[in-house]
Amino acid sequence: MDQTEDSNQASKEDTDMNVEETEKGKEWMELISVKRRGLLPTGVCYDDRMKLHANADFGPIPHHPEDPRRVEEIMKTFKKAGLVFTGSDTELLDILRLTPIRYMWRIAARDATKQEICTVHTASHYDWVQELSDMSTNQLRKLSAKLDQGRASLYVGAMSYEAALLSAGGAIETCKAVASGQLKNAFAIIRPPGHHAEYDSPMGFCLFNNVPIAAKVCQLEYPTACRKILILDWDVHHGNGVQNMFYQDPNVLYISLHVYANGDFYPGKPDNPMLPDGDLDKVGEGLGKGRNVNIGWPAQGMGDGEYLAAFQKIVMPIAHEFNPNLVIISAGFDAADGDELGGCFVTPPCYAHMTHMLMSLAGGKLAVCLEGGYNLKAISQSALAVARTLMGEPPPHMEMGIPPLSKEAAKVLARVQATQAPYWECMRPGVIDIQEYGDSATRLHDVIRGYQRQVLSQKYSMVPLFIQREALFKSFENQVLVTPGIQSKRKVLFIIHDPPELHAMPNLVDNTVDPHNAFALDGVTNYVDWASKNGFGVIDANVPLYITHPEDIEPFTPRADEKTLQNQVRELVCYIWDNYLQLYDVEDLFLLGVGNAYLGVKVLLTNRDCKDRISGVVNFVTGNLRPVKSETDPDLSAWYKHNSLVFVTANHACWSDPDLVKKVNKRRFGRVKPSPQAGLGRMMDEHAAEVREWIGERLRSSDEEGGDTTEDDK
Amino acid sequence: MDQTEDSNQASKEDTDMNVEETEKGKEWMELISVKRRGLLPTGVCYDDRMKLHANADFGPIPHHPEDPRRVEEIMKTFKKAGLVFTGSDTELLDILRLTPIRYMWRIAARDATKQEICTVHTASHYDWVQELSDMSTNQLRKLSAKLDQGRASLYVGAMSYEAALLSAGGAIETCKAVASGQLKNAFAIIRPPGHHAEYDSPMGFCLFNNVPIAAKVCQLEYPTACRKILILDWDVHHGNGVQNMFYQDPNVLYISLHVYANGDFYPGKPDNPMLPDGDLDKVGEGLGKGRNVNIGWPAQGMGDGEYLAAFQKIVMPIAHEFNPNLVIISAGFDAADGDELGGCFVTPPCYAHMTHMLMSLAGGKLAVCLEGGYNLKAISQSALAVARTLMGEPPPHMEMGIPPLSKEAAKVLARVQATQAPYWECMRPGVIDIQEYGDSATRLHDVIRGYQRQVLSQKYSMVPLFIQREALFKSFENQVLVTPGIQSKRKVLFIIHDPPELHAMPNLVDNTVDPHNAFALDGVTNYVDWASKNGFGVIDANVPLYITHPEDIEPFTPRADEKTLQNQVRELVCYIWDNYLQLYDVEDLFLLGVGNAYLGVKVLLTNRDCKDRISGVVNFVTGNLRPVKSETDPDLSAWYKHNSLVFVTANHACWSDPDLVKKVNKRRFGRVKPSPQAGLGRMMDEHAAEVREWIGERLRSSDEEGGDTTEDDK
Repeated sequence: MDQTEDSNQASKEDTDMNVEETEKGKEWMELISVKRRGLLPTGVCYDDRMKLHANADFGPIPHHPEDPRRVEEIMKTFKKAGLVFTGSDTELLDILRLTPIRYMWRIAARDATKQEICTVHTASHYDWVQELSDMSTNQLRKLSAKLDQGRASLYVGAMSYEAALLSAGGAIETCKAVASGQLKNAFAIIRPPGHHAEYDSPMGFCLFNNVPIAAKVCQLEYPTACRKILILDWDVHHGNGVQNMFYQDPNVLYISLHVYANGDFYPGKPDNPMLPDGDLDKVGEGLGKGRNVNIGWPAQGMGDGEYLAAFQKIVMPIAHEFNPNLVIISAGFDAADGDELGGCFVTPPCYAHMTHMLMSLAGGKLAVCLEGGYNLKAISQSALAVARTLMGEPPPHMEMGIPPLSKEAAKVLARVQATQAPYWECMRPGVIDIQEYGDSATRLHDVIRGYQRQVLSQKYSMVPLFIQREALFKSFENQVLVTPGIQSKRKVLFIIHDPPELHAMPNLVDNTVDPHNAFALDGVTNYVDWASKNGFGVIDANVPLYITHPEDIEPFTPRADEKTLQNQVRELVCYIWDNYLQLYDVEDLFLLGVGNAYLGVKVLLTNRDCKDRISGVVNFVTGNLRPVKSETDPDLSAWYKHNSLVFVTANHACWSDPDLVKKVNKRRFGRVKPSPQAGLGRMMDEHAAEVREWIGERLRSSDEEGGDTTEDDK
Repeated sequence: MDQTEDSNQASKEDTDMNVEETEKGKEWMELISVKRRGLLPTGVCYDDRMKLHANADFGPIPHHPEDPRRVEEIMKTFKKAGLVFTGSDTELLDILRLTPIRYMWRIAARDATKQEICTVHTASHYDWVQELSDMSTNQLRKLSAKLDQGRASLYVGAMSYEAALLSAGGAIETCKAVASGQLKNAFAIIRPPGHHAEYDSPMGFCLFNNVPIAAKVCQLEYPTACRKILILDWDVHHGNGVQNMFYQDPNVLYISLHVYANGDFYPGKPDNPMLPDGDLDKVGEGLGKGRNVNIGWPAQGMGDGEYLAAFQKIVMPIAHEFNPNLVIISAGFDAADGDELGGCFVTPPCYAHMTHMLMSLAGGKLAVCLEGGYNLKAISQSALAVARTLMGEPPPHMEMGIPPLSKEAAKVLARVQATQAPYWECMRPGVIDIQEYGDSATRLHDVIRGYQRQVLSQKYSMVPLFIQREALFKSFENQVLVTPGIQSKRKVLFIIHDPPELHAMPNLVDNTVDPHNAFALDGVTNYVDWASKNGFGVIDANVPLYITHPEDIEPFTPRADEKTLQNQVRELVCYIWDNYLQLYDVEDLFLLGVGNAYLGVKVLLTNRDCKDRISGVVNFVTGNLRPVKSETDPDLSAWYKHNSLVFVTANHACWSDPDLVKKVNKRRFGRVKPSPQAGLGRMMDEHAAEVREWIGERLRSSDEEGGDTTEDDK
């Protein structure tokens, strides 16, 4: 491999740039600047010696992901692309004097001092790292093996302390060169990374926390020109160390985009439960409130659409409002397409666009410091895209456009917006702090069900059915309504449905909704109307999606989990069956399941031996399809195949996912039919005639009395 | 003035750059490019001869705003700032060969051909402009005087045709140099401007529509590389000509930011009502639907906050989704701070930031073409900020931050979002197309009032009061509710209130609102509760803000105008007075006005001679304060001063506007008190105890029977 030769060359060149030459650099920079920062060169900091940090515990596994070749590979890529000059420094100076933006200006790394490091770390932590230098290989190997476990996730080696000093010192010099205006912007190709290191301990491949150290040093050296710093962390992992170091600091805004996955993704939840994690609700403390912005993705698999949307909707508005004097990117490239640890799909053009956006802040004072990223090709190409953008290259045209934002990510962004709204004007409207409204606030859910009750009682004289429950909750007050005389009906339609959909356009400014422009969509009433007019008794059961009571003031109450919902629904439908339907003399009982509540149909059929008394089942489904089968009744599954009609939206996965398609074809979910409509209300409207006809054909009782019965009811 | 000397120099130099030298330029551009577009120079197109277009009709008024010095002044500013080289072209070539981004590369303007112009104009329009060349000064003067009238708003002169050819040709050469990749980007300092010129007629200082001509020529010459073009028009006036030329074209996206002011701002509404104007709802036609985005401000006075928010929320998301191959800015600088015609406050740093954002599109292929802008200093400084940004200068740090977005502008952006939602993924959620929901949709207003009725009837046995109206509308069904036995009560509280406030957090993706997370805020119920328990009869009148029926499907139904609202409210409260209250034997009648509906208190007092029967008036006001006085009853005003208690939010203009403060101190609006709370619901909670006490003190009747009466009602 010619790789060795290359790196040897680099090694020689990278370490022997002396102070005198750097002074010369400063000189010409003064010469050429002509008050145009755009004519200053972009800096690059690299020192081959940072490769010397390596795992003392080299075991059978070929490579630790935090591989020394990471920094070398990036530097080689910069050279190959012609961004870094490969000739002599004297020659470079001559070229840059004339054409400052043609090549990157080399920033020499140096050892960070203990004083610098202790701006954010404890002295005992510094000492701990320093002591690695005094250990024997054997001792280091044992320590490495021990540290590799669990959340610490670390290795150490003979030169770890030395490399860590250079890495932190490189970050300092890079940020200082930018903050002081000597360079337009700069990129520090450094390792070991820093953002997991806590103030008192190493963690997650990190020894010293380079970026916070550099930020602190800049603030101390340039207290006015560098008062407010934005640290933007796009490493796929949450930078717990950075967050915690500035958690109460109003002058450092930390914004992190990372996979959170409910705390299941590294670094997850801290051992000390008092410490904040990477969740969206960790916004900082005291004076630092709102100065911590966690954009934690719900899962891996995010890509350009999500990252650019996060930048457009959250990062840039907040960053502009914060209005920093310096921006530092904690630039891990493990969200890059190709990084297996990260499992995300951010492309080099997307990194270029994010960099370009950040360049609009702080008068362009932007320093990039490498953090994680483990696929050598992916990190090199991503870093190259960033460096080219720093050097003034227009961000690439994305031929295929930006992929659309996934719904799950959109929800996270909405939640971040709501969470940060109290601290940032640009994030309002946000959360509804219902506590401050006190007694005068009523949940719309109760308002709507109350209204439904009024309409159903006015139109069809429906009354609430008594349901005995262990506890009575307000949301359940009008949960089940029935038409009068239901006990003597020969035909009954039992509707188990979700609450009506609400569609509203809120006021952009204060989140109020104009009732005139808000609509409750209720597909059920038309069915009640038809059934009632045609001699059916109707049981209308409204199943709230939320079951946490007493009223919870947390606006993002998670939806009831599947199991709890299932229990609640089972309790309800079985109660209705046991205490009412089973006792009636019904010849034709039809079940109508709507939305999530269609679960009720399944649990009734599987928990009570009732199929022989049911003439047909109609379901409208937008969510999970559910098989209906029973361990005690082997015939149930076959019965369901022949006696059900299940409408499913045409864009449901069951029409495209091969596994589901197979199950659908086998009628595992009953007789499933695609609906051209999307929402429940619209689906129910679309298929109303078809459902009526289907029910009509299946009637066992004679239908003649229908009209008369209706008259009776009036 | 040394101005003359300068411009003479410029004149010589600007016209004699010949083809050979331009060819040389191409040569070196090939030499230096090394595949880095960032190393290409920024172009500038200027030709002194464009100054020759001047008004033949020079009258007593010193200068027409579209002044020949406009282009000269910009070029001078570029030179002074060192962006344009003032030495010889040979020397420039030598410098640029080494330092391509140090100076702008000069693009020679040329005459546009008839064929080029007729890609967007009719031949007869071309001929009309050409014929100006054959006219005598006298003829031109007469024509100018005539054309200056009304919407045409134009002057012509002896060299107008010649200058217009150069202006269009300059735009073409500028855009071609960028589209073809010869230059990184470019700025065309051209006049006469173009964006008002229609396909068949000149208009608004414009003869040929330069930008559309250039766009068409680029599309024809580079059909693949330049298929989709974004024209971003930040001139303070709407570019009617550009809009209309591409109204059905899917490959040209026209986005305009301009003052619309309901059509009162130039160019306003077209004479031909079939033609679209600059309103938000003009989105394009046929294949061009969604390819026309009008961000029309409701008034002048917009600034950096509004423009940057528009870019963040609308322009950039849509532009990225459109993903153009070339971006052209129709760059009028009349929204700049200092331009009297525009009356807006956009600063040079804001222009830099907008330019920087647009540079992220189309791989940086951005051409800027001058349109309007009439303050010589403002346009020069704004253009300079744009040019510096094009050349790679970081956009300036805005020391004071970005001013907050005004609420009126925020509403416009929300409306634009809603309007464009059907055409752009990034703009959803948007408008609620309620038509498609059919019968199953119920306006929330009716749902909530229905619920209120249920609650009030359950708790206080309140019943609807019969109101005879010319037409019965659904929204009025439960409008007035009263406690039973009201006719024999000695104490009555008459509440006239707005519908409850709704607060909801909609789903970001599809605009649905989760009823569990939506709240109806109703400050009135607590008052009903208290009054009812203390022996008052209660009349509760709910005044809908919207009175347009039959149900209007337009989601942006304007609020009822003042006059219509006043008539409706008067009709209602007078009906209640005449048919009920006047006939009762009430000793203590209190009025409670809440929100906009507090108008009802005023109209009752001014339209009926009732003050002597009223013990006190309490109002909660967030909107307009209203004086209460009568032409027929000179004592009413004094009475109101002593018998009212009016709570007004502390941030209401009446506490800061000197005129209003004076009126408040004179008690012209009654006894006004500031409330620390903002919303109606919260205000009512805050002052509940105070109001009760106040009412208690003013009671004429003995208060002992209170409790008993309540018992009677139960």
